[in-house]
Order: sequence, then structure tokens, then C-alpha cells
Amino acid sequence: MLSSEVKIRVRYGETDRMGYLYYGNYPLYYEVGRTELLRKHGFAYKILEDSGILLPVADMKVEYYFPALYDEELTVKTSILKKPGVKIEFLYEIFNSENLLINKATTTLVFVKASDRKPCKPPKDFSDLVDRFF
Amino acid sequence: MLSSEVKIRVRYGETDRMGYLYYGNYPLYYEVGRTELLRKHGFAYKILEDSGILLPVADMKVEYYFPALYDEELTVKTSILKKPGVKIEFLYEIFNSENLLINKATTTLVFVKASDRKPCKPPKDFSDLVDRFF
Amino acid sequence: MLSSEVKIRVRYGETDRMGYLYYGNYPLYYEVGRTELLRKHGFAYKILEDSGILLPVADMKVEYYFPALYDEELTVKTSILKKPGVKIEFLYEIFNSENLLINKATTTLVFVKASDRKPCKPPKDFSDLVDRFF
Amino acid sequence: MLSSEVKIRVRYGETDRMGYLYYGNYPLYYEVGRTELLRKHGFAYKILEDSGILLPVADMKVEYYFPALYDEELTVKTSILKKPGVKIEFLYEIFNSENLLINKATTTLVFVKASDRKPCKPPKDFSDLVDRFF
Repeated sequence: MLSSEVKIRVRYGETDRMGYLYYGNYPLYYEVGRTELLRKHGFAYKILEDSGILLPVADMKVEYYFPALYDEELTVKTSILKKPGVKIEFLYEIFNSENLLINKATTTLVFVKASDRKPCKPPKDFSDLVDRFF
Repeated sequence: MLSSEVKIRVRYGETDRMGYLYYGNYPLYYEVGRTELLRKHGFAYKILEDSGILLPVADMKVEYYFPALYDEELTVKTSILKKPGVKIEFLYEIFNSENLLINKATTTLVFVKASDRKPCKPPKDFSDLVDRFF
Repeated sequence: MLSSEVKIRVRYGETDRMGYLYYGNYPLYYEVGRTELLRKHGFAYKILEDSGILLPVADMKVEYYFPALYDEELTVKTSILKKPGVKIEFLYEIFNSENLLINKATTTLVFVKASDRKPCKPPKDFSDLVDRFF
Repeated sequence: MLSSEVKIRVRYGETDRMGYLYYGNYPLYYEVGRTELLRKHGFAYKILEDSGILLPVADMKVEYYFPALYDEELTVKTSILKKPGVKIEFLYEIFNSENLLINKATTTLVFVKASDRKPCKPPKDFSDLVDRFF
């Protein structure tokens, strides 16, 4: 299993009228979570994309347990639970400043060629990297 | 069944580097969808909230089929499939300008009192309104 | 002078903890304002960009007079005050539902070639269109 | 003079179709800049707000010199140039990963009482803190 953690502080502009992190802003945090997970393991998402491969999101499931407050420093724990193929699945667990699990989500992303947007295998260096963990 | 449609045009600032509507911006469109569904049936979400009841999102499931492009006018069809109690579930179907279903999602929202954030029944005028449809 | 108006309703996700439209979300509304001004006069910004010309923003000046509230329908009046050259300047005036001027802004955008990001003249059909008004 | 620096990495969802940080997302970065400046000097904006004082933005001036790219780590340098009274003015200078100044902005914020939204003096502990620097 591959996993990593990143801290994200809730910005004022990301809250809503309820005073909470807007439910639609969590996907931004998941994006940071998976980007930093890849970076930590030596794989910049930007380089993947520059090499002609995109990773659009195919599905997302989110459970909101507790609100995240303005200025709170959250911990986003991101994991890859199983060996990726054409698809790659991420699990996100967000903990608030009191270490309470406030949000859990999964996303499935698909490797596609930028040229024709057809699904494809992940690049070899990515597979080599990831295979070590499964 | 209660349903309604609203048109939303994809803003430049809502696209990402891929040139598509960012996956994290769809929840904003779902919000517009359910707000307009309620408004169309005589129920302003703002008034609900001003009366001391909030409707936070408890879970969300999203399937992304095709990308939405910059400046495209999308149709968001929002439905309430079953009679709401403490929870209310919305279904969203987004069609692009060629009437292709590009995205489908559900969200569950919970009626809570603003004072103590405890779950509660929907207000009577809301129930009366909704009961006519189920 | 070229001008046009467009209605925009404030989304929940665009408000902040104060209950107001977040100060950083106004530029999204200006974008809608200038896009619709161009569209109304037969010129789709998307087509401009597809033809290899970009219009990045070079500067922006904003004055915030009164807050915009959640669910309020605002009127964004957008104008081009003087004949554009390499640069084009837009004026935005935002009125709330009581027709009070709540926000005023200007932005300067620059025509650049997508290929080398160098400033360039606007395309001929754009100049022809605009010249009729000055 | 009071100043401080904070690093912000450009998120995918903050870029636009041009591949750049969307011009409307810079104000979010200014917000982070001034929040961290205050925090560094022992003053949490959240506590200010919890004490019944808001700091809405009255005006903003932005100059965009160069684009900010996806995944780039930017440095936001925020300064308070003169002694604040009812108004407080911030200067923001954003440098890209090559230490090039890509964006400069100023914002004026006004201390107002949350109860009646009337302008007011800053709280005494804030003035005491700030006065040491001017």
C-alpha cells in the first residue's frame, strides 16, 4: 500500500455561508492529496501530463462526517489500496485539528492518451515505481 | 417525482489545464440544480436557512462520463426520487449541448437545526409541498 | 460605446463565512460579463481562442461598495469605453436586486498569440465589429 | 514595515484552459498572504472575527506580469506599508519558482463591527502589536 499525508489549511474563500469548508471544495483537497502522494514517491503529475498522458477522474464517492472550519489545519491522508492498471483508485481520509476523521472519499482515475483521449496503460516508470508497493 | 432543469454555461475560470470543466466544480452545478428545483416548486433554500434550518451534504456519488467544455451550455436535470424525511436525496443528470449525458450524481442532504446542528424533520410547509409529489 | 447586461445569481459555494459573495469571486462574474458582451455582439471568446489568440488579463482594479448576498440576482453591466488596440479595457458595474451599485471594476486585457504569447493586434473581424461603435 | 512570506503551490483546479493560474484565483492567494502575515505576528484573523470584528475588502488593484503555472511553488510576500487605522492596506508581491516577480497587488480592508457593519477602530491588542512596527 502506498500512502502519504499532507496538511491543508482551510482558506476563508473556501468556506461558505454556514462557516464551513464548502462541500464542493473537498475535491480540490483530494487533488492535492494525490499529487503530493505521487510527488513523495518520485512521480510528478505534471511530468506525466507533459509526457502526453492525462488522468481524468471517472468517479468519486464522498462521505461527509463532520464540518471543517475556517483556518483549521486539516490532514489529508491519501492511499492507493490496490495495484493500478488502466485505472487507479485513491482513498482519501481527512482529519481535523483534533484528529477526528471528518471526511472520507475515493476517486477512480483513468490513464488516457492526450492525443485521442483513449484509455491506456500507465507509463512504464510509473508502473515500476508502483509495483514495488503491491 | 419532483424534477426540474436549469441551464448552466461553463465559465473559463471553472475549466482546468485540460480545457475541461474541473471535476471539483460539478458540485457547484449540483447546488444550482437543487436550489432551482426547490425554487421552481415555491421553496427558496435561503428562506429555509433563514428560518434556522440548514441542509448540509452527508454524501455524494459522482460518475463522470464525458468532459464538459469551456463555454458549453449544459443542462442540469435535478430530481427528488423518493419522499424525503430527515434526509433528502437528489439525483443530478448533466447533459451537454448535444444532449449527451456527461455526468450523473446523487447527494444526500440532512435537515439540521442551525442552533445545535442536530438532525430534524423538514419544516411543515416543505413537507406539505413535497408530499404532493409522492 | 459597447455595453451589455447579464444576470448572475450568487451561488452558495461562492459565499464565504461572512455570508457574502467572497471578494475573490467577483473576477468570475467580470469574466461572464465580458464574455456575454462579446457574444451579444456576435463574437464568441471561445472562437477567438480557438483561432490562436489569447486574451490574458494585464491589470484589474476593483471597488467594493456593498456586499452581495447569497441567492441574490445581480446585474453585471459590462462596457468597452474606448476603441481597443493591442489592449482592450472593460468596465464592470454590478447592481444588486435593489438596483444599488455594489461593485465597480476595470480590467485591461491584452491580445497575444497563443504560439509565442507575444502581444498582437486583434483579429480583423473583431476590429471591424468593434470599430462600428467608436 | 511588517512583512512575511508564504509558499503556495498552484493546484490543478486553480488553473484554467490556458494552463495558467486563473486571474480570479489570485485573491485567494492574497488572503493566505495576509492571514499568514498576521498569524506570524501573533494575530489570528479568525480570533479577530470571533471577537465581533470583520475585515471586508474595500478595494483591490492587481497587476499581472507573468503567468503562474500548474504545480509551481509561488512565494507570496505580504507587507503592511503604513500604520493602519480604520483601514489597513496590504501589498502583495508574488514570485515564481525562478524568483521572478509575476504579480503585484494591493488591497484595502476596513475594520467593521459584525453587529452593524459600521467602520470601527482596530482592537487594542491589534493596534499595540502593529504600532511597534511603525
